[in-house]
Amino acid sequence: MKIPRDDRRSTDSLRALQTPCLLLDEQRMDGNIARLRARLAAAGVGFRPHLKTAKSIEVARRLITGANGPAAVSTLREAEEFASAGITDLTYAVGISPCKLPRVQSIRKGGVALTVLLDSLEQAEAVAVASDPADPIPVLIELDCDGHRSGVKPGDSELLLAIARRLGPSACLRGVLTHAGESYEAESAAALRAAAENERASAVTAAQMLRAHGHACPVVSVGSTPTAHFAESYEGVTEVRAGAFVFFDLVQAGIGVCAENDIALSVLTTVIGHQREKGWTVIDAGWMALSCDRGTAGQPVDQGYGVVCDMAGRPIPGLVVVNANQEHGIVALRADARAGAPELPVGTRLRILPSHACATAAQHDRYHVIGAGGGDATAEWPRFTGW
Amino acid sequence: MKIPRDDRRSTDSLRALQTPCLLLDEQRMDGNIARLRARLAAAGVGFRPHLKTAKSIEVARRLITGANGPAAVSTLREAEEFASAGITDLTYAVGISPCKLPRVQSIRKGGVALTVLLDSLEQAEAVAVASDPADPIPVLIELDCDGHRSGVKPGDSELLLAIARRLGPSACLRGVLTHAGESYEAESAAALRAAAENERASAVTAAQMLRAHGHACPVVSVGSTPTAHFAESYEGVTEVRAGAFVFFDLVQAGIGVCAENDIALSVLTTVIGHQREKGWTVIDAGWMALSCDRGTAGQPVDQGYGVVCDMAGRPIPGLVVVNANQEHGIVALRADARAGAPELPVGTRLRILPSHACATAAQHDRYHVIGAGGGDATAEWPRFTGW
Repeated sequence: MKIPRDDRRSTDSLRALQTPCLLLDEQRMDGNIARLRARLAAAGVGFRPHLKTAKSIEVARRLITGANGPAAVSTLREAEEFASAGITDLTYAVGISPCKLPRVQSIRKGGVALTVLLDSLEQAEAVAVASDPADPIPVLIELDCDGHRSGVKPGDSELLLAIARRLGPSACLRGVLTHAGESYEAESAAALRAAAENERASAVTAAQMLRAHGHACPVVSVGSTPTAHFAESYEGVTEVRAGAFVFFDLVQAGIGVCAENDIALSVLTTVIGHQREKGWTVIDAGWMALSCDRGTAGQPVDQGYGVVCDMAGRPIPGLVVVNANQEHGIVALRADARAGAPELPVGTRLRILPSHACATAAQHDRYHVIGAGGGDATAEWPRFTGW
Repeated sequence: MKIPRDDRRSTDSLRALQTPCLLLDEQRMDGNIARLRARLAAAGVGFRPHLKTAKSIEVARRLITGANGPAAVSTLREAEEFASAGITDLTYAVGISPCKLPRVQSIRKGGVALTVLLDSLEQAEAVAVASDPADPIPVLIELDCDGHRSGVKPGDSELLLAIARRLGPSACLRGVLTHAGESYEAESAAALRAAAENERASAVTAAQMLRAHGHACPVVSVGSTPTAHFAESYEGVTEVRAGAFVFFDLVQAGIGVCAENDIALSVLTTVIGHQREKGWTVIDAGWMALSCDRGTAGQPVDQGYGVVCDMAGRPIPGLVVVNANQEHGIVALRADARAGAPELPVGTRLRILPSHACATAAQHDRYHVIGAGGGDATAEWPRFTGW
């Protein structure tokens, strides 16, 4: 493969980095954000980006639509980190455990509008007991719209009403929330549209039932990256959540939610060896840099631990990371590859597109940002981990 | 299940921790270290523990047999971190890329006896050029004893001698190194013994060939956690490397290298919900806390994302983490479970044994140490990540 002259600049810039490391293509990220924002704005629905994928103040500032949010988080650590940067309109979108309520209250006392999520009477009881009636903890009831994991069945009016009653006046029922997690298994655009409509209808139906029984229920929150990009109606929905779309990944490309060239993250790596009789090229990015995620294993095209690109970010046809140890990746052609593999001498730098952006990003403590002007990877944006 | 009174103390101590977090059972770790040390001492062979699993100064000090090592590392970051703590006899056991040689030289100039690994003429050329003849970089040639990943075929005398010649006087050929990575796929004690003997014979044969051609080759380094525990002879071997054994995990238990109750790591988690009609208990440890590693998927007993234990660390029969999202784990009975699942109310604390200790530990920034006296998790040992 010939590298056009325009790419030489970025080649030089990236060559100075120690490998493996995480690259973020700012232009692609900005495009992904602009696309979803425009889609939701046209539909007249609110946008509450999920910050769990990025875990970065710099990325969060580009995602949020207001000065202080809104946003969703997956850990209280995220709530604390983003709140310290002024992002204070937050939903902690994982079912609350009673032992975390003192920390929730401490965060709220710092001026953070932190809403919690629950799907059981035990949790409602704990929140009601922990709540200060002068400043009740805002609560969303989680709905299980598609059997993916947590939540009350949307038609289980008895449990929904019992939770609402148990919260009582000392906590503040704000509404319902659901996540179409099964949309990641969709195999067609029609299936994605159906998943989105099911997500919407489940949430709206439950909210209407609660309202009919005297509960205000102002918030109807839905979202997943696939459904956010395929929903045809948001009637009755007040906000959409999505997170992985900011970077996208091979799993999303595999279900048709993005194109491979929308993927904004890649892992920069260096060739350290070969087993030529097997067609293997060995790189210095193993699962520690790529993550163990094998999300495309069940898709029509198994992309292994990631798609191999040249330094300019262009996929090398058919070449993937077929296996990964801690600090070794094995690059080889997919079984269905039609082209031969190029010679990649020791020292060659490559970029690996991630199977699952959330998991790959989590293995790194910073993003090396390739600016929207193209070429230079000069900025470093820190990211945090932990709970 | 009834919790004996003796366990109540640890129950109280662990209840104060935020979940999810990583627990380290010091007594089990010490037992694992003592067992392998005694085995290798009885065989009269040297021990070079691999520090990539622990990435902790405190654990490293218990692993090493001398004041400054010896030890193996998988990244230059590990070399720098451990060297700063006085552990300076180090082998960087991943094939060297030429772009890392300036950093290797910088580390060596700080007084670290850092040895590098290679398996090609290109690397030998780069090391020879980078080496200071007054202080040549010590080199081991990597051998591929079982087709696992990197290395020269042990019988490829032509390439081995060409590498040795190319290194010449400006670098210092110290010997050969091999890793029986395929031993993780062994299905019997006999297969493990055979893998260990093949590992030994491959390394010794290559070293003898090099010596016969005038290369001193004082180091013959072998090792993997499975073979280190099953080798019957170390004749001709000078040192054994192993890393994962310090904590052990379900993959190692699955191939019979340890018992489940040797596993020294676990992830402390809290129950946050249920889908009772499916037999699901939802916990606040997803793949972010457990890792995406599914290493037992190909073993006779698939332990999912980990085995579920009570607060005292006792496995609950048949209960595993069957699925994991970023911050949610789904606990359910294995298909082959004979006992029913106990009721685990919201707020219940559980401990999850890791599928792969290296991968699970990498998701955390510290160990909460349950002291050898039992009971209290008072100490925190930091661990580092990155390259």
